[in-house]
Amino acid sequence: MSEEKMISLDSIDDQLIKKAEAEGVETMWDRKKAMKTPCGFGEQGVCCRICAMGPCRVSPVEGKGAQRGICGATADTIVARNFARMVAAGTSAHSDHARDIAHVMHMASRDGAYNIKDEKKLLALAEEWEVKTEGRDIYDIAHEVAEVALNEFGKPFGTLRFPKRAPAPRQKIWEELDIVPRAIDREIATVMHSTSIGCTADAESMLRIAMRTSLSNGWGGSMMGTELSDIVFGTPTPRMTEANLGVLEENQVNILLHGHDPSLSEAVVLAANDPEIIKLAEEVGAEGINLAGMCCTGNEVTMRHGVKIAGTFYQQELAVLTGVIEAVIVDVQCIFPSLTPVTSCYHTKFITTSPKAKVEGATHIEFHEVTALESAKAIVREAVLNYGNRKKEKIFIPESKTQAITGYSVEAVVKQLDRVVNSHIDPQGTVKPLADVLKAGVLRGAAGIVGCNNPKTRHEYSHIEIMKKLIANDVIVVTTGCAAQAAAKAGLLSKDAVKLAGKGLQAVCELVDIPPVIHLGSCVDNTRILKIVSAVADLMGVDNCDLPVVGVAPEWMSEKAVGIGLYVVSSGIDVFLGVTPPVTGSKHFTDILTNKIEDMTGAKFFVNTNPHELTDMMLARIEEKRTKLEQKLAARAEEKECAVENA
Amino acid sequence: MSEEKMISLDSIDDQLIKKAEAEGVETMWDRKKAMKTPCGFGEQGVCCRICAMGPCRVSPVEGKGAQRGICGATADTIVARNFARMVAAGTSAHSDHARDIAHVMHMASRDGAYNIKDEKKLLALAEEWEVKTEGRDIYDIAHEVAEVALNEFGKPFGTLRFPKRAPAPRQKIWEELDIVPRAIDREIATVMHSTSIGCTADAESMLRIAMRTSLSNGWGGSMMGTELSDIVFGTPTPRMTEANLGVLEENQVNILLHGHDPSLSEAVVLAANDPEIIKLAEEVGAEGINLAGMCCTGNEVTMRHGVKIAGTFYQQELAVLTGVIEAVIVDVQCIFPSLTPVTSCYHTKFITTSPKAKVEGATHIEFHEVTALESAKAIVREAVLNYGNRKKEKIFIPESKTQAITGYSVEAVVKQLDRVVNSHIDPQGTVKPLADVLKAGVLRGAAGIVGCNNPKTRHEYSHIEIMKKLIANDVIVVTTGCAAQAAAKAGLLSKDAVKLAGKGLQAVCELVDIPPVIHLGSCVDNTRILKIVSAVADLMGVDNCDLPVVGVAPEWMSEKAVGIGLYVVSSGIDVFLGVTPPVTGSKHFTDILTNKIEDMTGAKFFVNTNPHELTDMMLARIEEKRTKLEQKLAARAEEKECAVENA
Repeated sequence: MSEEKMISLDSIDDQLIKKAEAEGVETMWDRKKAMKTPCGFGEQGVCCRICAMGPCRVSPVEGKGAQRGICGATADTIVARNFARMVAAGTSAHSDHARDIAHVMHMASRDGAYNIKDEKKLLALAEEWEVKTEGRDIYDIAHEVAEVALNEFGKPFGTLRFPKRAPAPRQKIWEELDIVPRAIDREIATVMHSTSIGCTADAESMLRIAMRTSLSNGWGGSMMGTELSDIVFGTPTPRMTEANLGVLEENQVNILLHGHDPSLSEAVVLAANDPEIIKLAEEVGAEGINLAGMCCTGNEVTMRHGVKIAGTFYQQELAVLTGVIEAVIVDVQCIFPSLTPVTSCYHTKFITTSPKAKVEGATHIEFHEVTALESAKAIVREAVLNYGNRKKEKIFIPESKTQAITGYSVEAVVKQLDRVVNSHIDPQGTVKPLADVLKAGVLRGAAGIVGCNNPKTRHEYSHIEIMKKLIANDVIVVTTGCAAQAAAKAGLLSKDAVKLAGKGLQAVCELVDIPPVIHLGSCVDNTRILKIVSAVADLMGVDNCDLPVVGVAPEWMSEKAVGIGLYVVSSGIDVFLGVTPPVTGSKHFTDILTNKIEDMTGAKFFVNTNPHELTDMMLARIEEKRTKLEQKLAARAEEKECAVENA
Repeated sequence: MSEEKMISLDSIDDQLIKKAEAEGVETMWDRKKAMKTPCGFGEQGVCCRICAMGPCRVSPVEGKGAQRGICGATADTIVARNFARMVAAGTSAHSDHARDIAHVMHMASRDGAYNIKDEKKLLALAEEWEVKTEGRDIYDIAHEVAEVALNEFGKPFGTLRFPKRAPAPRQKIWEELDIVPRAIDREIATVMHSTSIGCTADAESMLRIAMRTSLSNGWGGSMMGTELSDIVFGTPTPRMTEANLGVLEENQVNILLHGHDPSLSEAVVLAANDPEIIKLAEEVGAEGINLAGMCCTGNEVTMRHGVKIAGTFYQQELAVLTGVIEAVIVDVQCIFPSLTPVTSCYHTKFITTSPKAKVEGATHIEFHEVTALESAKAIVREAVLNYGNRKKEKIFIPESKTQAITGYSVEAVVKQLDRVVNSHIDPQGTVKPLADVLKAGVLRGAAGIVGCNNPKTRHEYSHIEIMKKLIANDVIVVTTGCAAQAAAKAGLLSKDAVKLAGKGLQAVCELVDIPPVIHLGSCVDNTRILKIVSAVADLMGVDNCDLPVVGVAPEWMSEKAVGIGLYVVSSGIDVFLGVTPPVTGSKHFTDILTNKIEDMTGAKFFVNTNPHELTDMMLARIEEKRTKLEQKLAARAEEKECAVENA
């Protein structure tokens, strides 16, 4: 594949990259090139910077070169520790996100900027957490639930609450492995401690500690992020939207919302609809204010408000290159520090808002939740007042944009499934129709395709190729994060895409009235996948690992993805990676991840940088799981029959 | 300096290293050699492995080579993030240690393995934390205080309790900098989040976040580690002991206690004195059981029981090389994974006990606090039963051992100071005599010399040279960690060493009856230094940064040392490092640490790998601070006089 072709699937990206070159703007592709060959020790995970006796680089080859670091740490130990720290960092990001939402819920009020939007969901959670609801004001309940949530981060005794949602056999596995997570922050601290000089030096033990931490992410912080966001900002419902840089408007104030935490973006949506701000936009000569989302913030606002999607992670610089973005407003995570130099080449304001993610050279306007609307208005005002500063000669908006449906919460999925429930036979409001078509083989399986972009792959090529091949093979796809936005841009989130599906999936999509690739939300919303899979397993009376279900991260790059991957495998779902994680320097640890971990969890990691081969591996694994599941269910049916006969 | 000379001050170490060579045993010196030139990017902190787009290596030279990582992170950002993660890891280690002690205190009982040994200290802490004491059983109080302690790790609201112990002007500085720490684990999570891809990309902002985390260590976890250990295991008092490998006994069962957490080592001390175990030792033909401590565990047990000190961090392999160690019993931190291959060359059992630090190839006997004595006896029994397996031809015990006094808690220091209080004029039980001699200039200043060993320096040479030069210049030295053990081995913890002191310090030592270098305990006990310094500052009505006091880490290597260094500077005390931290790839960040941070905290870092030059820098700084302090106190006296005249 030529260098050109490596860049992206999208010809509009190529045009913008050429524009960057012409205008002397440095982009990630330039930096990737300048980086030359990446460090082999780092890539293989055998570089240890954990103490100042080093840095030590041990040889990934047995018997050749330095075999141990100065303290005696082997490649196995160094790789395992580095991996565990990635899990801890990923967990901290997702969980800190949830913590902020919990604080927002704790300050929610009937007449404030933050309200309770889904009372039903709140009441269900209150019941689950044994918070009294009878005769209480909904806001009192919310505040107490928020306190319970906040204590999940630091309670000194006991284990987390959400893991109790997993299928019973799964919980038993966790107990036996001693990886039921305690308080979320404690698990992060434990990894940091155990990986420090002179602590854990046993790869499997290190992995278990990391697994427990990852579960405190998936069945802790991330799940809390989803649940509390739904309660405070509303549980998503399917909405039409458009995606790609063509959503930018030449005659409007364009605001790029980038980052993760809906506390900010929801307030910005409110602010952008505030009459005072709209009037200001008119005064500066704009026809309106056009919000466009990017990265997980893009997912959050599109699934609750239908805000258009400007693009994925890798397009953050390209968006600015259009010359029509008045402000890039960010909070936390996945924000290129290069937005400072890139925006400085245009009139665009780069506004950071979180004390956890200040960027040198950006305009920092701290967002305060207690005065959310005022805070957001101040930020949006900056953008509006910048409209007049555009440099006309630098404007170029690509025409490309695509229709997409976003916003399938678990509740929305169940509602769609209810369409095919014969209410005389089956109850409404369950995932039984999904379980039935999976069991029958109308759908061969399900795949969750998630994650980032990575310049090690051709952007979005892996995402899209994998999705297309899977749906053609009657594997239904659910998607989150930047993978979901890639799908949106490729038209796979529209009902038109049904024509790309296999016969079985086509039938299901038509009956249930869904696209073949379903938008489930942001990266924390991978927990929606956990919920659906667990519900199907429960219905069938099996464990997650028995189901023909796979998790896929074709173009992952963030430590968050490592944390997610590990909680997904620990939850019994295979994970397929399209980018090799930095573990290959240890044969032993690589073997644990791609092999032995299956003995513990019933699932494992698969790695292949070729998306077609990776998909073939998925399809094979799905069929393997199908066969085993059929045998298991058949054996059980036989047992039951015998029991009846013997009775 | 020749390669030979670089190794160690101690000729007995040389003998053991030669023994290792003869017996084909690999030691850290062999591994250091095999490592060849360390990676320059890593050493300078400009290697980023924070996401899988990289690893990225940016150039430490402005304008030459790759200036930004693929995401756009600059050398400043990369260095600052790596530094912050070291602080987070160090904080997690110390604080996790404290958490375990808090859990032990929570299970303490009158007739269990863990009791309350210092009721007075418990009651004082209960009062400080507003726990009711009147009419309550001491164990009820202890359990409630332990719960309050445990909540310091994860409380969702508010800030930590111990920072209120700092001088008022110091607290004000922290408030203004917005670095008053919240829950300890939360601060660790915040660093991990803020350092992850696309978050903080501003060096100063990153440093402030790291500072807050470091304060949650010094004025949080570490201080809790000290306080609760004193309550449960007894507040140390001065004791005679001996140090160096000559403390090993040819005709006894030798157990090397290595690690950090006194919960284990205290139980082992009990177990080794258990009649049943002593009888077993007799049965196997030993004359007794000889416990010998190493690293911080060595400090913990010597200061409470006078257990002999086998040596420092770098001697852990050498101790095994004597061929007379029946078992190396470890818990967490600073444990060489190489103890597996080294012990395998002898009869020595390498026993790990903590789920947080399993080591491949070691015998893991998990230590359970709830059955502490039984657990410890099972471990000690393994050692005793191993006595008969010694290989006679491999035995070599060096003769060298030195007398030392250890165990100066703050309370013990104050008690010594009381010797010179004229009780007609001044109250007893304060640090006023110390403040007075500092003010008068009899002592020019005080230095806390702490930290590890590092093969980048000649072992202990820096520790000892610095200590000797400081005491000769009338600077009193307090010491903890492996630095303290180096002092013990060099004879500086004995009253004989007074002859090496300058006239002023000599007079003080004789009057107060102390050695010129005072053993304050383990690494968490650096908080004893914070307490003494703050008490002196309070007495003088100034801030810590006004005092002629320095912190020194001549041979540091652990991330814990980075965490300590930063909380010490944040507390207003200059820190002098003998090993360069991996920050030099960013001129900007290096300048903040060694310069600009003084504008924020009144203190800064000094780095020099030459111990003599480093000491000269300390002495100059001490005199600089003395001059300013004199001016400040004089100005204040004048003000008072004016006020009196005007009245």
